[in-house]
Amino acid sequence: MFWYILLTMEQLSIFLPNSYLAESKDSKVRTYKVGLIGRYAALYRADNIVIYNDNSEGGSHEDALYMKTILEYMNTPQYLRKQVFPISKELKNVGILPPLRTPHHPLSDQEIKIGDFRQGLTKKRVRKGTMVDIGVDRLALCKEKLSVNKVLSFRIVKFGKEILIEPDRPNDLYWGYETLTSDSNLSNSITMMKSKPDLVIGTSKYAPNITSIFNEVQSSINEAKHVAILFGGPYSGINTMINEHKLDFVLNTVCRQGTETVRTEEALVSTLAIINAMRE
Amino acid sequence: MFWYILLTMEQLSIFLPNSYLAESKDSKVRTYKVGLIGRYAALYRADNIVIYNDNSEGGSHEDALYMKTILEYMNTPQYLRKQVFPISKELKNVGILPPLRTPHHPLSDQEIKIGDFRQGLTKKRVRKGTMVDIGVDRLALCKEKLSVNKVLSFRIVKFGKEILIEPDRPNDLYWGYETLTSDSNLSNSITMMKSKPDLVIGTSKYAPNITSIFNEVQSSINEAKHVAILFGGPYSGINTMINEHKLDFVLNTVCRQGTETVRTEEALVSTLAIINAMRE
Repeated sequence: MFWYILLTMEQLSIFLPNSYLAESKDSKVRTYKVGLIGRYAALYRADNIVIYNDNSEGGSHEDALYMKTILEYMNTPQYLRKQVFPISKELKNVGILPPLRTPHHPLSDQEIKIGDFRQGLTKKRVRKGTMVDIGVDRLALCKEKLSVNKVLSFRIVKFGKEILIEPDRPNDLYWGYETLTSDSNLSNSITMMKSKPDLVIGTSKYAPNITSIFNEVQSSINEAKHVAILFGGPYSGINTMINEHKLDFVLNTVCRQGTETVRTEEALVSTLAIINAMRE
Repeated sequence: MFWYILLTMEQLSIFLPNSYLAESKDSKVRTYKVGLIGRYAALYRADNIVIYNDNSEGGSHEDALYMKTILEYMNTPQYLRKQVFPISKELKNVGILPPLRTPHHPLSDQEIKIGDFRQGLTKKRVRKGTMVDIGVDRLALCKEKLSVNKVLSFRIVKFGKEILIEPDRPNDLYWGYETLTSDSNLSNSITMMKSKPDLVIGTSKYAPNITSIFNEVQSSINEAKHVAILFGGPYSGINTMINEHKLDFVLNTVCRQGTETVRTEEALVSTLAIINAMRE
C-alpha cells in the first residue's frame, strides 16, 4: 500500500450547516448523505469538519449531533467501533457507509511493525501506565497516565509478548478528521477554533467564478497554514450569514451550473477538488 | 429563474462502466448512487452518459439497463414520468432521488409563453399532424407527423384554446442528457458515437497530476468541440482497458488522495468540477 507523503503541515477545515439534512427524510439517505461528507473530507484530507448552526428551517441541534456521530463512526478504525459505539437507533444504517480506507484504518490482516502508527482505545489505568486496545489479541502498554475510554494515536515502540506504545501521530500521513459541532452561528464557530484559520473562503453561487481569480486564489492557498472553507445549506447562503469583509474570498466553484440549485454536498466536493488541484 | 446562457455549442460526454454498482447491494443505495451520476451530469451540463462494458467482476448488462432506466427517469420532466415509466420494481426507490431542477424541467406552476421550449410526449397521430402532451390540461398540436410515444423537445408557437408547437430545442440552455448503453468495451463505445469526440481524456490514479499540465489541458478543453471523459470502475482501471495512444490525456484529478481508493462517482464529480473551472 502506497500512501502520499504530505509535504506541508497545513490544516484544512470545512464548515457545514446543521440544516444539511433538512431535505432528507429517509433514514438510509440521511446516513448515506453524511457518509458523502466523510468520504469527501478524507479524500481531500480535511482535518476538521465543523457543523455550525445556520438557524434556518429544518436545521437542528439533533441533526448536528447525528452528523457528528456518523462522521466519528466512519473515522474510527473498524477494530474499535463496537467498543466505542454501542448499538443505537442512529447507527442502524451504518452498514451502507462506504469505508474511508485511510492510512489510520489498517486492514485487519496487516502486519504490525515497530515504528507503525496506530489508533487505540485507552482501556484501564495500571501501576505502570495505561493499557490500550490497538486491535490485536492483547492490550498494549503505554507508560503514560492517560484518561480512559478515549481513542488516541500511538506509535509502536516494542512488539513482542509485551507491546509498548507511545502517544504519537505521523505528520506526513493523512490521519483522519475531527468533527466539531457548535451551537453558534458561522462567524462564532470560526472564531472559536483552537487553531485560527489564516485563509477563510466562502462559497456562494452569487460570487465571482473561481476561474476569474484562479491565480490569486491559488497563491493564497499555497501560502496559507490553515485554510477554512465555508458552505451554506439548503435555505441559508453564505452571503446572508457572514459579513463578506470577514472573508478572504467568496467564490462560485460551480460556475454556469446546469441545475437551478447546487446541493451542499455537491458544492463541498467540487470546491475541495478544485482547491486540491491548485495545491503545489 | 435565471439560467446561464451557454456560449459554445460544445458537447460533453462521460463514460462510466457497467460495474459501477458492483459493490452496492442495498437497493436504496443503488438508486441513490445512480442518482449521484444524474445530478453530477446535469450540474456540469453533460450531454451524453455512456455506460460501457468493462467486462469486470460485478458488472452486468442488467446493471447497465438499470442505470439507464434511473438516469432517464431523472431526465424526464415530472409531468411525463407516470406515462413514460410504468410502475416497476426497478423504480421502487425513485422517491429518494434528488430532482435535477434543470431548465427542461419547468415547475408545475410556471406560466407558459410563446417561444418557450418544452418537452412533450407524442400521443397520437391525427390528420393535421401529431397530438403531444406537454404537461398542461390539453394536448398540443404539432403539424408534423412524428412517431408516437416519444419524448421530444418543442417550441410553443401559439398558446390559446389551441396550442401549436414545433419540434425545436434551445441551443443556449442546458437541455438534459442522453443515456446510452453499450455492450461493447470502452474503445468500441467511443468509436460508436454518432458525434465523434475530438478530445478524449482518461482518468486514472496512476496518471500525472492534472496540476502539472493544467495549462495544456485547459487550452485543449477550450478548443475542443466534443470532450469525452472516461472513468474506470471498482475493478477496472482506464490504463488496463484502453491503449493510451488513443487518448489525448490521461489525468489524475484527485491528487494525493487521503483514501486508498477513489470511487467512480468521486472521480466523476471531481473531474467535472475541475474541467468546468477550466472553461472560459
